[in-house]
Amino acid sequence: MATFSRLVRFLAKDGNTYYGDALMPTGVSDVAKTTKARVIQGNIFGKHHVTDQIAEVRMLLAPLARQDIGTVRCLGLNYEQHAKESNLPLPKYPVLFYKPVTSISGPTDDIPVPVMAQHGEGLDYECELVAVIGKEAKDVPESQALDYILGYAVGNDVSHRDWQLKLGGGQWGLGKGFDGWAPFGPGIVSSQIISDPNNLHIATKLNGQTVQSSSTKDMIFSVAKTISFLSQSTTLLPGDLIFTGTPQGVGMGRKPALWLKDGDMVEVSLDGVGSCVNKVVFDKPSSKL
Amino acid sequence: MATFSRLVRFLAKDGNTYYGDALMPTGVSDVAKTTKARVIQGNIFGKHHVTDQIAEVRMLLAPLARQDIGTVRCLGLNYEQHAKESNLPLPKYPVLFYKPVTSISGPTDDIPVPVMAQHGEGLDYECELVAVIGKEAKDVPESQALDYILGYAVGNDVSHRDWQLKLGGGQWGLGKGFDGWAPFGPGIVSSQIISDPNNLHIATKLNGQTVQSSSTKDMIFSVAKTISFLSQSTTLLPGDLIFTGTPQGVGMGRKPALWLKDGDMVEVSLDGVGSCVNKVVFDKPSSKL
Repeated sequence: MATFSRLVRFLAKDGNTYYGDALMPTGVSDVAKTTKARVIQGNIFGKHHVTDQIAEVRMLLAPLARQDIGTVRCLGLNYEQHAKESNLPLPKYPVLFYKPVTSISGPTDDIPVPVMAQHGEGLDYECELVAVIGKEAKDVPESQALDYILGYAVGNDVSHRDWQLKLGGGQWGLGKGFDGWAPFGPGIVSSQIISDPNNLHIATKLNGQTVQSSSTKDMIFSVAKTISFLSQSTTLLPGDLIFTGTPQGVGMGRKPALWLKDGDMVEVSLDGVGSCVNKVVFDKPSSKL
Repeated sequence: MATFSRLVRFLAKDGNTYYGDALMPTGVSDVAKTTKARVIQGNIFGKHHVTDQIAEVRMLLAPLARQDIGTVRCLGLNYEQHAKESNLPLPKYPVLFYKPVTSISGPTDDIPVPVMAQHGEGLDYECELVAVIGKEAKDVPESQALDYILGYAVGNDVSHRDWQLKLGGGQWGLGKGFDGWAPFGPGIVSSQIISDPNNLHIATKLNGQTVQSSSTKDMIFSVAKTISFLSQSTTLLPGDLIFTGTPQGVGMGRKPALWLKDGDMVEVSLDGVGSCVNKVVFDKPSSKL
């Protein structure tokens, strides 16, 4: 379906912001390492084409502009080993929650932490495969579900466990929905290149140390199952994102627990896609309040 | 802030779809009863103006087009009497969840019920005051919060209790997120007209019988408190909707429980705004699955 191999959105050295098809250096598969891209013109979910214009990348941005992003759906407890570390039974159906579009940020953006989330237990990372819907999907059988995917990225479902689990009345909406708490990227790799999204290595490094390392094989509901299931309750639209859950190794699952601190560097990576590297930055108190 | 008194979106007798400022018949306050409106031209959250062109209403639509709607946030357990009928303690902080934009529908649209939500316990109604954000809000103090609101509508947070509470792993995302399960309207009444959103009668009628009847005074977190609180975790954007919770009288809270059936007519209404009347329609099984 896709007209590109690796969709990137970037600030170019010429000062413009473009969508582009990444031109990968030989032997490199991390989209974050691309330095040039063929400029794409038009509407990425409508009429568009990859031009011959080559632009130099100054900085990669979130691979979709805010106005091109639809609903951001996320799954909880979707890896067997993660459900076990959380001491929770395997879910019978996908556990669905949402993030607002304001949580989306780019592969090198800071993760801002407002005052209300700087206390308690605790700020956590979650590396996730992100599926990007490419065409309208309703009542899609599992066997055809992957045809509706434009491509894949890696994301970080940043979470504050107290707000998620204790202070939010049991609903995860607030504790996972802060501004900039869903970095994703570094690009969207076409589903023509990644034919099997459930056989990829996925990992998180915290300040250079590996803290999550697993395979998307461990998902309880595969990407295809998830899309088929969701499409029976709602219409999935082009530009919708699905964060498909995180494997074991989150800070909450460790003994002792491991919480993110001001200044920490978090890197989430997915085989064949690349990595997002984001710095945790605690906000100063607002002068407006 | 608003340039209009009562924003409506409608299919006109001339065959076009317009935004308009409702011309209310004398002595009438239910926006659903408007038959004419002054056409609004331009971007409703940007540059626009109310013209002198008067168009005749054939059918009112959801008062915002899908592309003008941002994130749909909803509060749970936000009325004291409803928390009591649910046998749950009063929340200490607002309980936040989301609905996808595909759940939004108009004031007379059918409520479609897919096969997966036709069984079990049970399909329920929830009348709610809907606040529409008119300008970007971050770290807004309670005393200024209402200045960020464009206006108010009434909505129905249609819910399937089994999917919401038992089958969704405790997260309400799926059981409240089906296509068309958030009718709202009939128009958006400017916050210049409704100066106090927490002193309005709100009600639901099921097949003509009153089943919910309360006042927005009973909210635990007032509209102003809610906006101030949410704005400390995230930036609220123009076009974001906040469904502010439902009062007592939902089907789940009754003895015996009262579930919506195929063909039921549900009317939610809010003082000074008007009513949405929607028919419950069970879908046939999909031929695609």
